[in-house]
Amino acid sequence: MTTQFHDTVLSDAALDQLFNEARTYNGWLDKPVSAPQIERIYDLMKMAPTSANMQPGRFVWVTSDEAKAKLKSCVMEGNADKVAAAPVTVLIAHDIDFHEQLPWLFPHTDAKSWFEGDEAGRTEGAFRNAALQGAYLMLAARSIGLDCGPMSGFDAAALEKAFFADSPRHKINFICSIGYGDPASIFERSPRPEFGRFNVVV
Amino acid sequence: MTTQFHDTVLSDAALDQLFNEARTYNGWLDKPVSAPQIERIYDLMKMAPTSANMQPGRFVWVTSDEAKAKLKSCVMEGNADKVAAAPVTVLIAHDIDFHEQLPWLFPHTDAKSWFEGDEAGRTEGAFRNAALQGAYLMLAARSIGLDCGPMSGFDAAALEKAFFADSPRHKINFICSIGYGDPASIFERSPRPEFGRFNVVV
Repeated sequence: MTTQFHDTVLSDAALDQLFNEARTYNGWLDKPVSAPQIERIYDLMKMAPTSANMQPGRFVWVTSDEAKAKLKSCVMEGNADKVAAAPVTVLIAHDIDFHEQLPWLFPHTDAKSWFEGDEAGRTEGAFRNAALQGAYLMLAARSIGLDCGPMSGFDAAALEKAFFADSPRHKINFICSIGYGDPASIFERSPRPEFGRFNVVV
Repeated sequence: MTTQFHDTVLSDAALDQLFNEARTYNGWLDKPVSAPQIERIYDLMKMAPTSANMQPGRFVWVTSDEAKAKLKSCVMEGNADKVAAAPVTVLIAHDIDFHEQLPWLFPHTDAKSWFEGDEAGRTEGAFRNAALQGAYLMLAARSIGLDCGPMSGFDAAALEKAFFADSPRHKINFICSIGYGDPASIFERSPRPEFGRFNVVV
């Protein structure tokens, strides 16, 4: 029997931490993120749903000075100092051949056969679901008291060559710095749309 | 000054509600989701980050019998009864011309010019960031005590014709039923990967 939470609303403090007061950071305090914190982020985010439990995300956590220097050379100028200063930047990639893992990831049925021979479909599914995983990752990091700075300004070919040369079926999706955000590094909050602008109820 | 939450870990109950005990539902209790609940989900998820605050997601919340019947005819057979029974199914689409909104959504700089004339880049950015928004939406729904059932099994062309005929630049990303999940409708939990399988720290 599964636990349900019907009509349980998280505390205002938790909603602030996840959504309302959390901000995107561009600079970081000089405070490390530990290996157990990184594993805890993954162990939370992996529980959230992906299509047929495909779990297409492949994650490279850049923490060493050597790896940061390599990453710095792959990102746009405006992001170079950010990834150099962040305690960790995670590269969120997806495996176009995720279906090879489905026999054990989705043992209920032969889901691998749904995707065989359909590389275009796999490419779209892997891209969408790894983006979902990236979003789960950010909220998981926030849920354990860390801050995020997601970025898509990088040279994808250079980054894949530098970090995924041995896994050519892994394609970069986006990257995200994680750490203890420097409050001096945030921009003014950008406007958010009122419900009626981009929503319709039918 | 922004509020920070450094090293504040959400309660085990909150982490269970968001990640560890939450499940994907295939059936729904006969209990409605209210308009204020729908707006609350949006008002939480819109606070989470998108690239240059592009907010490309466009959301159609299917609640009426008439709209459910229309949606039922656009989804794969295995999803037809699910969307008919769910109190609400949200269609998560993205606007390929999201850049037209950037002058007010990202007033810090002329971000619109970054995307003009680059439809391929906009298509990728809109797809990625609306997927992020869909993930935020699911965790926002869970955070107010609702359950989710995301699906990508539908006829995209039929769905766009049925629901986005007046907005041909809006492309469907995925759909998600929301409500009070029927505990009898969940499958056995699929396995989750251990950290070392899909992660590397460098």
